[in-house]
Amino acid sequence: MNTRPTHIPGALAATSLKQLRFTAPLVHCLTNDVVQSFTANVLLALGASPAMVVDPAEAAQFGAIADALLVNVGTLTHPHADAMLAAIHAASQAGKPWVLDPVAVGGLSWRTEFCHEIITLKPAAIRGNASEIRALSGLSASGRGVDSGDDPLSALPAARQLARGTGAVVAVTGETDYVTDGMRSWAVAGGHPMMTRVVGTGCALSAVVAAFAALPGDRLDNVAAACRVMSCAGERACAVVKGPGSFTPEFLDNLYLIGEEWLNGEGMQ
Amino acid sequence: MNTRPTHIPGALAATSLKQLRFTAPLVHCLTNDVVQSFTANVLLALGASPAMVVDPAEAAQFGAIADALLVNVGTLTHPHADAMLAAIHAASQAGKPWVLDPVAVGGLSWRTEFCHEIITLKPAAIRGNASEIRALSGLSASGRGVDSGDDPLSALPAARQLARGTGAVVAVTGETDYVTDGMRSWAVAGGHPMMTRVVGTGCALSAVVAAFAALPGDRLDNVAAACRVMSCAGERACAVVKGPGSFTPEFLDNLYLIGEEWLNGEGMQ
Amino acid sequence: MNTRPTHIPGALAATSLKQLRFTAPLVHCLTNDVVQSFTANVLLALGASPAMVVDPAEAAQFGAIADALLVNVGTLTHPHADAMLAAIHAASQAGKPWVLDPVAVGGLSWRTEFCHEIITLKPAAIRGNASEIRALSGLSASGRGVDSGDDPLSALPAARQLARGTGAVVAVTGETDYVTDGMRSWAVAGGHPMMTRVVGTGCALSAVVAAFAALPGDRLDNVAAACRVMSCAGERACAVVKGPGSFTPEFLDNLYLIGEEWLNGEGMQ
Repeated sequence: MNTRPTHIPGALAATSLKQLRFTAPLVHCLTNDVVQSFTANVLLALGASPAMVVDPAEAAQFGAIADALLVNVGTLTHPHADAMLAAIHAASQAGKPWVLDPVAVGGLSWRTEFCHEIITLKPAAIRGNASEIRALSGLSASGRGVDSGDDPLSALPAARQLARGTGAVVAVTGETDYVTDGMRSWAVAGGHPMMTRVVGTGCALSAVVAAFAALPGDRLDNVAAACRVMSCAGERACAVVKGPGSFTPEFLDNLYLIGEEWLNGEGMQ
Repeated sequence: MNTRPTHIPGALAATSLKQLRFTAPLVHCLTNDVVQSFTANVLLALGASPAMVVDPAEAAQFGAIADALLVNVGTLTHPHADAMLAAIHAASQAGKPWVLDPVAVGGLSWRTEFCHEIITLKPAAIRGNASEIRALSGLSASGRGVDSGDDPLSALPAARQLARGTGAVVAVTGETDYVTDGMRSWAVAGGHPMMTRVVGTGCALSAVVAAFAALPGDRLDNVAAACRVMSCAGERACAVVKGPGSFTPEFLDNLYLIGEEWLNGEGMQ
Repeated sequence: MNTRPTHIPGALAATSLKQLRFTAPLVHCLTNDVVQSFTANVLLALGASPAMVVDPAEAAQFGAIADALLVNVGTLTHPHADAMLAAIHAASQAGKPWVLDPVAVGGLSWRTEFCHEIITLKPAAIRGNASEIRALSGLSASGRGVDSGDDPLSALPAARQLARGTGAVVAVTGETDYVTDGMRSWAVAGGHPMMTRVVGTGCALSAVVAAFAALPGDRLDNVAAACRVMSCAGERACAVVKGPGSFTPEFLDNLYLIGEEWLNGEGMQ
């Protein structure tokens, strides 16, 4: 059951990236307080447009205007939860995809309840680490904070179950990422341990997943492409920098510069 | 009517910059969640002092202490709106200038109403893109999110009208910036398209406009100087970096290092 | 009474740093809106884990899970104050240390009252500039905003008084830092004036103080070690960069790379 899925071909990721740059989707980001600037810069570097609109009434209005919506519960508050619900309903009514990043779900009670409630509202994709995906799927989790104590491959069955239960494409990310629609799955290699020493790499990936979820074509492929683009830019940055401080500028430059030829190959595995 | 205004002379911009560094104005920033850190770093690099005080009662107290106030509605919420009104009234009573950045006005209803309300409270300056300035002036706009679909020069008549109606110096920024008090106008060249791939360059410019609005002397000249200092630091940075990630450190270094001699010339036009 | 304390020996700071990396404390940060990302990146670079959990109910739950709590009142609001009180009580009940950064206390009324209230709740450490520490201690202060008008050495008597009154280790930081438990004191040299041109260096130091306060051993030594690690990384960064923009990546890299041998010596005094 845990047979390792095939790696997404570079050509497939490149096709999605080309479409992203062509369509430049506008992503409505309802994300946590810590990663707002980095998330916006990642989307801009890649060629998408971010906008953070947080008042519930305006979030409802903007949910229908934007091409995709990101909901990240990292610093959830009651006003934010209201805005998220309003934006999810507006996006859904307008036929726009929304993506969930269930930060620290399983470890904290209120956000766990909130995420269990909103995954019934047909997210297009869910991106989390192994313990978050396990917790959402109803299987046991071991996370204490925002970092995962679990291995992504061991959480693939939970990801498949969550995908089948919600209709979302589920990405469980870590040393290798696994992306599944419940039936088919891709592995995504690349990335680097140093990326865990920079805040927001996972959260920004979820925003990129939202941007790619707005593209036409196969959603499983598009979400896996989002993961591959980020892991490719990250591993290239880590190969030349001396620490997590110089990682950030190099990573953003790579997202700006990344071309089709960078994506051929499966990462540094 | 749309004759292109003259470029602000470098010597004029240099005089304002010298005064800014001499007086080191304390700028009370009520700005959006995404750009807080970048805004503070831009002001600090340039030699001004930022402070973000957001509780309505404290914002009123601080509005009278600071040398200038920035109001940016990018992530407007009701508590923020209360703090903004309290700070505007306190700053006005204390004779301190306040500056408006009407992010995404025209595209979203509540902030549009809010900005129409507060521009009656005598802002010293307003800084926005073409579609925001058009929307505030009552002319039609085409913005969907925070980016402008309009050309700055074509919005100059709207900027003039807004300046005459509010008493503010109005800066409409884009590939070239235009700054007007309704009678006289300056053009400000420089900048670079890559700056649109970094979040907060416009928002930080508005904070710098607030700092320069606190200087003695002609406000039109001072606001145009703020635009020129930022475009000069930006175009120099873009000339040596490979992407938007490495832009940020280089840009902040340039704001720290910028001298009179850098400002002679009209930019890269 | 104001005899200059001895500088903390490098070997002592190195021992604390080694323990920090071994235990990787999870630090619950209730900090201001401006410095969230930088604070998280500083903790991650150094080998600790940050988490920002801001809803009052969740903050209470997380206060008992995390290894230490940071309370920074820079952008205090009533919902934040509720979360801070909930987290302080939970951390205290669970025997976890909490650290106060009294940003701009003395200059603004509400936060001054709030901080006077919470310092009765047995903070493990307090980190501020000279005017903030004076204001908390009940002595007169001269701060207008977040920057200090006072010299750290002249505030050492106030720091000692505050330490004796609260039971906290008090760090008063500036060109040289002084750390005291009311009886014994350390001086910490290093740092660089350029660090005052980067937002959040003081706030991030307070988060690092919280991480070090979670370590076993002598708390005075551990808090002084936190100051020394940050000043060492900062002075090394300033020696090679040209401005505050390139400071940030270099500083974070240094926190990631800093080893025992870097800490031998007393800084650049």
